[in-house]
Amino acid sequence: MTGWPDRRLQDLLGIEVPIIQAPMAGVAFADMVAAVSEAGGLGSLACAMLTPEQARKEIALVRKQTSRPINLNFFCHQLPRDDEKRETHWRKCLEGYYRELGIGADERFPSSNRGTFDAPFCEMVEEFAPEVVSFHFGLPGKALLDRVKSTGARVLACATTVEEARWLEDRGCDAIVAQGFEAGGHRGMFLTKNVSAQVGTMSLVPQVVDAVKIPVIAAGGIADARGIVAAFALGASAAQLGTAYLFCPEARISQVHREALRSSRDDQTALTNVFTGRPARGVINRLMREIGRPGVSPCRCGGHAPAAGRGGERTRRLSSPLVRPGCSALHRTFGRASDQTSCRHGPFQAGRP
Amino acid sequence: MTGWPDRRLQDLLGIEVPIIQAPMAGVAFADMVAAVSEAGGLGSLACAMLTPEQARKEIALVRKQTSRPINLNFFCHQLPRDDEKRETHWRKCLEGYYRELGIGADERFPSSNRGTFDAPFCEMVEEFAPEVVSFHFGLPGKALLDRVKSTGARVLACATTVEEARWLEDRGCDAIVAQGFEAGGHRGMFLTKNVSAQVGTMSLVPQVVDAVKIPVIAAGGIADARGIVAAFALGASAAQLGTAYLFCPEARISQVHREALRSSRDDQTALTNVFTGRPARGVINRLMREIGRPGVSPCRCGGHAPAAGRGGERTRRLSSPLVRPGCSALHRTFGRASDQTSCRHGPFQAGRP
Repeated sequence: MTGWPDRRLQDLLGIEVPIIQAPMAGVAFADMVAAVSEAGGLGSLACAMLTPEQARKEIALVRKQTSRPINLNFFCHQLPRDDEKRETHWRKCLEGYYRELGIGADERFPSSNRGTFDAPFCEMVEEFAPEVVSFHFGLPGKALLDRVKSTGARVLACATTVEEARWLEDRGCDAIVAQGFEAGGHRGMFLTKNVSAQVGTMSLVPQVVDAVKIPVIAAGGIADARGIVAAFALGASAAQLGTAYLFCPEARISQVHREALRSSRDDQTALTNVFTGRPARGVINRLMREIGRPGVSPCRCGGHAPAAGRGGERTRRLSSPLVRPGCSALHRTFGRASDQTSCRHGPFQAGRP
Repeated sequence: MTGWPDRRLQDLLGIEVPIIQAPMAGVAFADMVAAVSEAGGLGSLACAMLTPEQARKEIALVRKQTSRPINLNFFCHQLPRDDEKRETHWRKCLEGYYRELGIGADERFPSSNRGTFDAPFCEMVEEFAPEVVSFHFGLPGKALLDRVKSTGARVLACATTVEEARWLEDRGCDAIVAQGFEAGGHRGMFLTKNVSAQVGTMSLVPQVVDAVKIPVIAAGGIADARGIVAAFALGASAAQLGTAYLFCPEARISQVHREALRSSRDDQTALTNVFTGRPARGVINRLMREIGRPGVSPCRCGGHAPAAGRGGERTRRLSSPLVRPGCSALHRTFGRASDQTSCRHGPFQAGRP
C-alpha cells in the first residue's frame, strides 16, 4: 500500500499499514492479533493478565495464523506488597458489594492479577522473538530491556507527556506511543502522578513529535479514518486504535461490555483508579459512581501508588483489591449505569483525587 | 484564498480564512480583533469582562481599523446572588492571601465582574450589528436570541458534548464551536456539570460533526498549522485558536502571564474552578495548588453552581469571590509556580471535585 505521508513506522516495523491494534488485556487474544497483522497492521497481544504459560499458548496460536510482525505488550509496574492495613480499609469500603455478590468476606487474595515484565516473560520473548515488544508504565530495568533488544525486537513504549517521551527515547526506545487523555484503558503515565495535567491527543502529539527524533504513534480518541488522517496531520507516523477493535467479532468481551460500548455516548467515560489502583478510562459504571469519589469512602490507603520523582525513582503499583482474582465477579456484575456522576460544589482541580 | 477542503464556514460568515481567534476576556481587545479580521480570519471581542460602555469603545476602535466581519462574544451564565454564608466561607478560606497581599479583610464586593448577556448588551449588538455573535455557557433566553438574530448576525455557540451541540442546533445556532478538553479558559459546558466526562478534541469533533448538520468549529489544543489540518481531517469546517494569539504583540497580558506562557510545558495546565467558580483551564499556579484541592480548604459552598438538568433547567453562576474586582491583585500576584500538584492516594474519578 502506498500513499501514506510518513512511512517511518512501516519501514521500522515491517508492516504495510501504519495502524496498531492497541494491546487490551483480557479482551484481545490470538484471533484478534493474527487478524490485524494479516490485514497489514500490527496486532498486539497484551500479556499483563496472562501468565507466561498462557501467553505462550496465545502466541503459538498467533504464529499458526500469521508470519507477519506482531507485538507483545507488557506492563512494567512494581507489584504491590501485601499490606494488611490497606487490605482492611478496602475490605471495609467494599464489604457491601461482597455481601451483595456473595463473595466470602474472609477470602484472601495475596497479590495483583496484573503481571509485570520479569525474567519469565523475558524468556518467553527470547523464545518467540516477536518483531515488536511494547511497554506500558515506563520500561523494565536495563538488564531486561537489553535482553529484549538483543532479540532484535523493536521496542515501543507509552508516553503521556513530553518529559516521558524524552525519557523513553533516551533509553533506546524505537518509537513512542503518545497517549492522549481520551485514550481508553490505563494511562501509561510513569514520571508523573498528576492526572489533572494530562492533555488530549490534539495537544500532546505535536509536542511529542517536536521533542523526539524517533517516530511517534498517536493514541487516544482515534476511532475511524478521520482520526487516522488527523494523527498524521499532527505529525504522527502511525495511529493506535483500541476501542474500535472491540466491535470486531474477534473481541472477547462480555455481553454487558458489548452493550455498554454499543450504547455509550461521547460523555459517558471517565478516568478512575478504582479498578486497579492506577488511573484508567472506562465507561462510567456503578462502581466508579459509588467508590470513585474522594471523601465518600474510607479508602484512603489504596489507590495508585506514589509514582515518579523527577530523579527517576519510580514506584508503580496496582494495589486495588479489585484487580484480584476473586473480585472479577464485581467487574462482571456492576456492568454499566446510565446516570452520571454528580459533582459537589467546592473548589476543585480536575483529576485531583 | 482557495484550497480549503470545506468552505462552509467562510461562506456562512463571509471570511477568507477558516480560522477564528478565540474570544479571550481581559486579554484580547480591539487591536487583536481588527488585526485578525483584517488578515482574513474572524477576530472576536469577548465582552464578559467589559461593561456595555467599555465594549462600545472597543467596537468603535475595531470598526475604525476594519470593515471585515467581526465576532462579539458573550457569556450567558446566571449572575450569582449575594450569599452571606458563602461569602463568609470564602473569606475564611482566603484570609491568608488577603493578609499577604494587603487586601482589606472587610472589603465587600457585591457581585461578579463577569457580565452575562442581557438587554443592555443586546442593545449594543443591535447598534453595531456585528456579523457574528457567539455565546459561551449555552444561549440567552429566546427573546434576546431572537433580537440578536434579527440583526442578521450569525450565531455561534460552544458545545462540550454531543448533547449540547444538538441542543444548540435545535435552537437555531448557525455553527457549533466543539470545545475539546484541551481548550484554555472556561469550559463552555452548560447541560452537564460532570467535568470528569469531558473529552478531548480528537474524540469530540467527529462525534459532533456526525450529530449536527450545521458547520462545526474545532477548538482545544490547536496551536499551529498541524492542528488546523487535523481539525479539517476530523470533519470541522474551521479551527478556533486562543492561546496561540497570546504570543502576538496585540495581546494585552501581564509580564507574569507572558513568562508563564513562554516557559510552560505540555504538562503544566489543569482545569480548576477557583478563579471564577466554573471549570476553566489555566497554567497551574500557586492558587490552584493551594485552594484547588477538595477536602483541604473549608470552601464547600462556593465553586461552580448546579448546572443543567436534562430537562433544560440551567443555573450557571460565577460565584467565586476571586472574580470580584478587588481580587485582581490575587491574579496579578500569584503568577505561576513551577512545581506540580500532588496527588493523594485514595480512590478517585478524575475531575470529580
